[in-house]
Amino acid sequence: MNGAESLVSTLVDEGVDICFANPGTSEMHFLAALENPRMRSVLCLFEGVATGAADGWYRMRRAPAATLLHLGPGLANGLANIHNAKRAGSGMVNIIGEHATAHLKYDAPLASDIEGLARPLSHWVRRTISPNTLAGDAVAAVEQASARPGKIATLILPGDTSWGDVASPPGSFARSGVPVAQAPDVAAVERVASILRSGEPAFIILAGNACFGPALDWAGKVAAKTGCRIGTQFFTSRIARGAGRTPLERLPYAVPQAVEFLKDFKHIITVETGEPVAFFSYPGKPSLLKQPGAHVHRLAAADEDSALALEMLAEALGARDTVSIRQTLQEKGVPTGALNPLSIAHALASAMPEDAILVDESLTTGRETMGHTAGAVAHDIIQNMGGSIGYGTPVATGAALACPHRRVVCMVGDGSAMYTIQSLWTQAREQLNVTTIIFANNSYQILKAEFANMGFGAPGPQALAMIDIDRPSIDWLAMGKSMGVQAVSVNTADEFFHAMMRCNAMPGPSLIEVRL
Amino acid sequence: MNGAESLVSTLVDEGVDICFANPGTSEMHFLAALENPRMRSVLCLFEGVATGAADGWYRMRRAPAATLLHLGPGLANGLANIHNAKRAGSGMVNIIGEHATAHLKYDAPLASDIEGLARPLSHWVRRTISPNTLAGDAVAAVEQASARPGKIATLILPGDTSWGDVASPPGSFARSGVPVAQAPDVAAVERVASILRSGEPAFIILAGNACFGPALDWAGKVAAKTGCRIGTQFFTSRIARGAGRTPLERLPYAVPQAVEFLKDFKHIITVETGEPVAFFSYPGKPSLLKQPGAHVHRLAAADEDSALALEMLAEALGARDTVSIRQTLQEKGVPTGALNPLSIAHALASAMPEDAILVDESLTTGRETMGHTAGAVAHDIIQNMGGSIGYGTPVATGAALACPHRRVVCMVGDGSAMYTIQSLWTQAREQLNVTTIIFANNSYQILKAEFANMGFGAPGPQALAMIDIDRPSIDWLAMGKSMGVQAVSVNTADEFFHAMMRCNAMPGPSLIEVRL
Repeated sequence: MNGAESLVSTLVDEGVDICFANPGTSEMHFLAALENPRMRSVLCLFEGVATGAADGWYRMRRAPAATLLHLGPGLANGLANIHNAKRAGSGMVNIIGEHATAHLKYDAPLASDIEGLARPLSHWVRRTISPNTLAGDAVAAVEQASARPGKIATLILPGDTSWGDVASPPGSFARSGVPVAQAPDVAAVERVASILRSGEPAFIILAGNACFGPALDWAGKVAAKTGCRIGTQFFTSRIARGAGRTPLERLPYAVPQAVEFLKDFKHIITVETGEPVAFFSYPGKPSLLKQPGAHVHRLAAADEDSALALEMLAEALGARDTVSIRQTLQEKGVPTGALNPLSIAHALASAMPEDAILVDESLTTGRETMGHTAGAVAHDIIQNMGGSIGYGTPVATGAALACPHRRVVCMVGDGSAMYTIQSLWTQAREQLNVTTIIFANNSYQILKAEFANMGFGAPGPQALAMIDIDRPSIDWLAMGKSMGVQAVSVNTADEFFHAMMRCNAMPGPSLIEVRL
Repeated sequence: MNGAESLVSTLVDEGVDICFANPGTSEMHFLAALENPRMRSVLCLFEGVATGAADGWYRMRRAPAATLLHLGPGLANGLANIHNAKRAGSGMVNIIGEHATAHLKYDAPLASDIEGLARPLSHWVRRTISPNTLAGDAVAAVEQASARPGKIATLILPGDTSWGDVASPPGSFARSGVPVAQAPDVAAVERVASILRSGEPAFIILAGNACFGPALDWAGKVAAKTGCRIGTQFFTSRIARGAGRTPLERLPYAVPQAVEFLKDFKHIITVETGEPVAFFSYPGKPSLLKQPGAHVHRLAAADEDSALALEMLAEALGARDTVSIRQTLQEKGVPTGALNPLSIAHALASAMPEDAILVDESLTTGRETMGHTAGAVAHDIIQNMGGSIGYGTPVATGAALACPHRRVVCMVGDGSAMYTIQSLWTQAREQLNVTTIIFANNSYQILKAEFANMGFGAPGPQALAMIDIDRPSIDWLAMGKSMGVQAVSVNTADEFFHAMMRCNAMPGPSLIEVRL
């Protein structure tokens, strides 16, 4: 058994049984070890697809996937989506191939400071020093990645540690026994309970693991009992949503609207998140969004068991048997007419299949649209936590692999889609049930608003040339075809609805260009 | 005048008059400042295209371009091609937008350790602290980038330094007076002269600025006079090549062939490079390629004036008036028959327009082909110095902007092309004279050889699934169409020749899929 075989075997023993790979020469031994039938390997044609797919996998499975990347530049190509995953609390184990140890001193062309590149966006970085330490390193990496919230664990794999023989096959490793989530802070629960009992206006902001499963129900009971409001930041890693679920309000993105939204709340209670801050800063606008006199109280930190904290809170408030607030189904039938934010929302909500996974990177279009889809059938929605665009199509790819029996609907702006468009190819190869919806406004539309937000009014011709992505317009039908994904363009709300319905009924990936 | 205007105005005053941009909200002020008519701004739909284009610009202009990237993740997306540029000695000035200083402490979603991400692959990193220091910071960045060899200068631009007013417009800045290239080491020249006089077998390896212009002629005179051999590493940043030029031999890529090539040389003389090392390490194979008893002598370091060193060497050897060795034109007419390395080379050489710029990322196909194109008309060839794939199409984009009256021929494997395929869009928007030739073997073909080189023989089904990129095959005609680039597929050598000739005659970008 060589080091690479020991690594792959240990990863699957520890529950990491999928690897999103973009390999090179230094990873040939790892590639050979992937013949292990317990490990699923998925080829990605660009590393940002691999790391984004690992994020998508984690969001649905709540367990880390592995990536296999080729030396420093391969890692670098994956970093933007590692940033997004880190901000989402998604764990992953990155295996970074590296030159053999004895070769490093020659500073061959692909050599770089891999640790230096990895550290800013990893929680844990280790360089394996021998085939014999590799299994233990893999266990440590998986344990890190599996912590709560999930962590970015990066393991650097010099060629010789991969191809060298191990002295004896890895035995079974005991985990170090760190609990996955910390117990809630009883004093914090009591403080929050007394605030909610006071009847003063309060907004509970849920994040992380508190936005799906039992936590959400407990929050709904608390809201029903006390009249407090519950919601999320503008971006959240995963929200269980739609008919029958406890509905969460969404803090607006734009600073003036967010300030307006929060203006009457005397208390902001946070669960696995911090107090609301502006996504960007603007001249003369505040960074903090709450009213100056408002108080912020932490009910549960990101590493605490927030479901238990919310259950304890409901218990303290006598809300254990309260009926939680519930979203009702809002059936709207087939939409008609021109495409606009409302008709798009109507089509989305009407055509959304039960238990769909919505990956939202629709930016401008989505801001006006998504609020109107809350009354659709039950679904999950996934949002971009790190703000680096190009997260949508890779995350959809990973989510579809994690949940092969659910339809993934990836809503993405045309500008964003172009960053990691190679995802379509992996979706075609793996025949994933992903419907990619491209909102084609031929523009980084969001930047026109941001240009005005900065106080410039309308952009001049040069600035506009950096914002509009027409000349040429991207031909999305051809783009889908180039990577084996069926594509269709729609110009009206009913065309959009019917295209979605056809995609739902058809196994494998498809693409809908929504022409705006 | 605000900080951004001061920055753009200073950059153009210092000679940096093109900016490859992929902007976001924090760069809106820079965008507004791009209305300055002296700065050309070029939009790229992915940051790796922007940094690769800056590399291509430098390779031809020998002067830095600017890039504009959006916070840490935007920089991260550009790092792989920054790595390649750094290894090529290509200078560039990266402007990295950042949150306003007062906003940083709130750790907003897009915040990250930009310095940490920049440092491993930059020579110089600075964070601007005020609108008033920005002009001076820009001068320092350009001076760094313009050093010899070119350097990676990364300037972090917090929003407030960009939108804040400057107290007074920037005056003219005196450069600090560091010479662009150091004077040659006279003792080194004398040592090398005496070795060459001895008649012992010697191989001079040229790199950097020594592979084009007068340096190449001086090297040719030395070779003609002494009988020494002259050549390059396998990868070189730019070589003037073809009929009428001094021909350079090319060290083979594969370790056994490289060792065989070097086995009779008692002396290896280096110019702007080091002694030959294996690109990767393999079990049981050497990292150093020279014969154990061979001696390595440095004629000129990368920061020295290598043209002058070679002239001094020629002078010392009495070769000033020697006729340099010269490549003759090898006219071969129109090729016919099946596509194979020889017929591909034949078609390339016959159809290559005078003064073409060849950007080579053809990997497997190119290794067997490129040697056979040396007798074409005069041209430049550019190779991948850092080994991170996805360099070709961006570098071709930058080279075409640098030399609008020359045809750029970008030869790229299908696997490599997919990393930064967004380049096609910029080529279409700017109507660049680039012919992209995709060698479509539906495989990371190079990895099959590397799998065998590692001692595994043929890959098993799982490993093969990570190497072959068929299922689905990429439809290159559709890919070209999707981004506004005319595309054609060829199946024979004469079809390839005629397609190249048609592309030569047609302004703007085109794509040829060579079906292997």
